[in-house]
Amino acid sequence: MTDAVKALVAALAAGEVEVVDLTQPLSEDTPILRLPEPFANTPRFRLRELSHYDERGPAWYWNAFESGEHTGTHLDAPIHWVTGRQLDDVSQIPPARLVGPAVVIDHSGQAAGDPDHLLRIQDVEAFEAEHGPLPDGGWLLYRTGWDARADDEAAFLNATDTGPHTPGIDVACARWLADERPILGIGVETVGTDAGAAHSFDPPFPCHTFLLGAGKYGLTQLANLDRLPPSGALLIAAPLRIVRGSGSPTRVLALVPR
Amino acid sequence: MTDAVKALVAALAAGEVEVVDLTQPLSEDTPILRLPEPFANTPRFRLRELSHYDERGPAWYWNAFESGEHTGTHLDAPIHWVTGRQLDDVSQIPPARLVGPAVVIDHSGQAAGDPDHLLRIQDVEAFEAEHGPLPDGGWLLYRTGWDARADDEAAFLNATDTGPHTPGIDVACARWLADERPILGIGVETVGTDAGAAHSFDPPFPCHTFLLGAGKYGLTQLANLDRLPPSGALLIAAPLRIVRGSGSPTRVLALVPR
Repeated sequence: MTDAVKALVAALAAGEVEVVDLTQPLSEDTPILRLPEPFANTPRFRLRELSHYDERGPAWYWNAFESGEHTGTHLDAPIHWVTGRQLDDVSQIPPARLVGPAVVIDHSGQAAGDPDHLLRIQDVEAFEAEHGPLPDGGWLLYRTGWDARADDEAAFLNATDTGPHTPGIDVACARWLADERPILGIGVETVGTDAGAAHSFDPPFPCHTFLLGAGKYGLTQLANLDRLPPSGALLIAAPLRIVRGSGSPTRVLALVPR
Repeated sequence: MTDAVKALVAALAAGEVEVVDLTQPLSEDTPILRLPEPFANTPRFRLRELSHYDERGPAWYWNAFESGEHTGTHLDAPIHWVTGRQLDDVSQIPPARLVGPAVVIDHSGQAAGDPDHLLRIQDVEAFEAEHGPLPDGGWLLYRTGWDARADDEAAFLNATDTGPHTPGIDVACARWLADERPILGIGVETVGTDAGAAHSFDPPFPCHTFLLGAGKYGLTQLANLDRLPPSGALLIAAPLRIVRGSGSPTRVLALVPR
């Protein structure tokens, strides 16, 4: 029997395919979104030790933990946004949609010069002219270099008295990706899929509004996008199967041909 | 370019490879282990609503949650057990070891007749004689039919006044799988990798003791093992990347040729 799964197992064993971890570490130091009053904020990730080879459990170490659904590397399910309120929660996403091809558009140079840098339709069209159409049933990953700030919450959120300044996607492009391209969703390195200044856009938070409303997904706080080719990787986005969950911290892995 | 990743993407799109979800839903109803006094117990999974398209967040719905690291479908890292205390926590597991082939030994018939049924070395050897050696860098999944009880905590834990009665692996086989077979670990349908009666074994909890001590892993509370072939599936075990975590609730997916 020679099937695609068997061939992949052999390629992994031979080192012809690499598993790249696109996930940020999850700890008390994981940067979290900060919303202004009167909106609710998410708690910081927190471990609570249950036993540590001690009288509470002589042979075992384990913890309980608290987290937000949208903390660290995480997936936004359609139900997260009011435009997707009738659509899937995170436990209802069909498993086949957790595995799909990924392409990477790299604007780290532009974002280094302008933290409010926005991806536009023409940028994606230019990428498509070189690398082919965005993948049907796959991901558009948007590299901005923001993962280099993930160890420093202030630099990662990059807030001033005018609010947060982090790169994103403009309104027209968000609508077009939602309506005109057959992707599963978008993945970013920043704290959320929308730009830091997206509260001031019309409509506000266009990535959330249009993509989740179209039944698509968001992946955030990704790492190691610089280790992926522009196209040719397979992405596995594996959220917890939280019943009624609006999203989940997520392990994101990529299979990359060497 | 025709590489193994590209071939898999095509096979997924053509329906020649299926993504099977091996994960139980995660909710307040997820069965949890119960340890006797004086040992610490893990909290039940619990959602706490942050906003629901309301004044706390007009356009968005999201939750915080509390969980144990070893709640629902989850992965045991080596550091979970005192025998593996110098080994990897869940965030340190090399990503390449989260993707590997899986074989399934089905003892659901035996476990239906005897809830204390134990897998023995000769059972695994008989499987190997028919299906080939246990996979190097892969998983032994042990089907017992116990997933059918996952919606009923009392039936799932199956405790009497002599303690819990759920199927597992005997001491000699646990030691042999740890020391003599090149697997990543074992996966089960029950609340833990060890049998319900394993507190009374010599040593107690042999799967935890030997496998985690050998740097291997445990996967528990798996679903849908009846949808996997005896060999030929690829398993993706995707725990959260919890820094210092002894384990994590885990999304487990299988790629299965049709």
